[in-house]
Amino acid sequence: MLTLYTYFRSSAAYRVRIALGLKGLPYDSHAVHLVKDGGQQHTSAYRALNPQALVPSLQTATASTDGSATLTQSLAIMEYLEEAYPQAPALLPADLLGRARVRALAQVVACEIHPLNNLRVLRYLTQDMGLSSQQKDAWYAHWIALGLGALEEMLATSSATGQFCHGDSPTLADCCLVPQVFNARRFGCPTQGYPTIERIVATCEQLPAFAQAAPGQQPDAE
Amino acid sequence: MLTLYTYFRSSAAYRVRIALGLKGLPYDSHAVHLVKDGGQQHTSAYRALNPQALVPSLQTATASTDGSATLTQSLAIMEYLEEAYPQAPALLPADLLGRARVRALAQVVACEIHPLNNLRVLRYLTQDMGLSSQQKDAWYAHWIALGLGALEEMLATSSATGQFCHGDSPTLADCCLVPQVFNARRFGCPTQGYPTIERIVATCEQLPAFAQAAPGQQPDAE
Repeated sequence: MLTLYTYFRSSAAYRVRIALGLKGLPYDSHAVHLVKDGGQQHTSAYRALNPQALVPSLQTATASTDGSATLTQSLAIMEYLEEAYPQAPALLPADLLGRARVRALAQVVACEIHPLNNLRVLRYLTQDMGLSSQQKDAWYAHWIALGLGALEEMLATSSATGQFCHGDSPTLADCCLVPQVFNARRFGCPTQGYPTIERIVATCEQLPAFAQAAPGQQPDAE
Repeated sequence: MLTLYTYFRSSAAYRVRIALGLKGLPYDSHAVHLVKDGGQQHTSAYRALNPQALVPSLQTATASTDGSATLTQSLAIMEYLEEAYPQAPALLPADLLGRARVRALAQVVACEIHPLNNLRVLRYLTQDMGLSSQQKDAWYAHWIALGLGALEEMLATSSATGQFCHGDSPTLADCCLVPQVFNARRFGCPTQGYPTIERIVATCEQLPAFAQAAPGQQPDAE
């Protein structure tokens, strides 16, 4: 059985929960509270699993021919799921340019937007750099506007965009997009200015894999 | 022929230059100056190629069976090179857990360190948020220490680490690590506290693919 170390609100864990759902893979869920107790990700027990002190981590199934291991980084975990469970619905297209496009769309979220706006960065801005809550919000909104603006243009101008980010079935790009949009809305950044993104997210949210992965549906939700 | 849109000092472009060199793939180099003229990445001509207004972009060879396209995001580009040119030296190991480990190491750099410390972010801190140069430097050093500290632990504690980040040949992880360390040194962050990283980077720098990809060796170097 796979074990996912997760936090209900973590965007990166949310991505992996969606991917696990799309692949139809059952997993044990182990909550790591990023705020309580000064952050359970900083305990020595968790850091022994993941020295980055970040969620998610995925413990692979012991039945794997490769043996068991703890994987880190959401994109790497999703690529692993794609390679280890190829019989389940594909999260990457078959053609090389399509695969590159899906990965790039996912990485606009995972390398350009989310790293600037996750919990530890926002905390550092206010707690360590002494910025005001308003300045932190302006920071958040700036990177959302830049990132979602670029994504909207990439999606709206490409004939490869379908019901989902790439064609008519969900891919890694959708696994990244939906948590990012959830996060933006939670921080009060409206996303109506991105009609293609809004349309795709609404389509995704109809699928059980996306709905069941949502923060509010997690056992550790508050 | 492949065409790389690059800037000599861009860490992300540097990664792809290394990968192209390791794969032995010749390419045309097209410089996009990120500072001059208010940033050539913001021209409408470049944004038509890459709506993210970031480097690198890679125009694929027209002889490809998939046709030509412009790819974005350095990790997606390197994965494409791995898939499109499988006959050249592999930049990912063959086993699934090894592939996941290499991708995670690469993503510690590409998703946790570099996004916080690239040119546009540092500029935003000082020019838009009014932080001092000292505050910007403290910000830079904070994310370097956190990220390289985690990487050092992942590398030093794993038997999978060899002469390079994973085993005894370079992978995508090394393609990301070397530019990040170069960048840290340029910004005055010493890396001697990370002995495994230092050792691996020194080994990489002996290889022509790494040496030739260095910022100082580029046609657009200043």
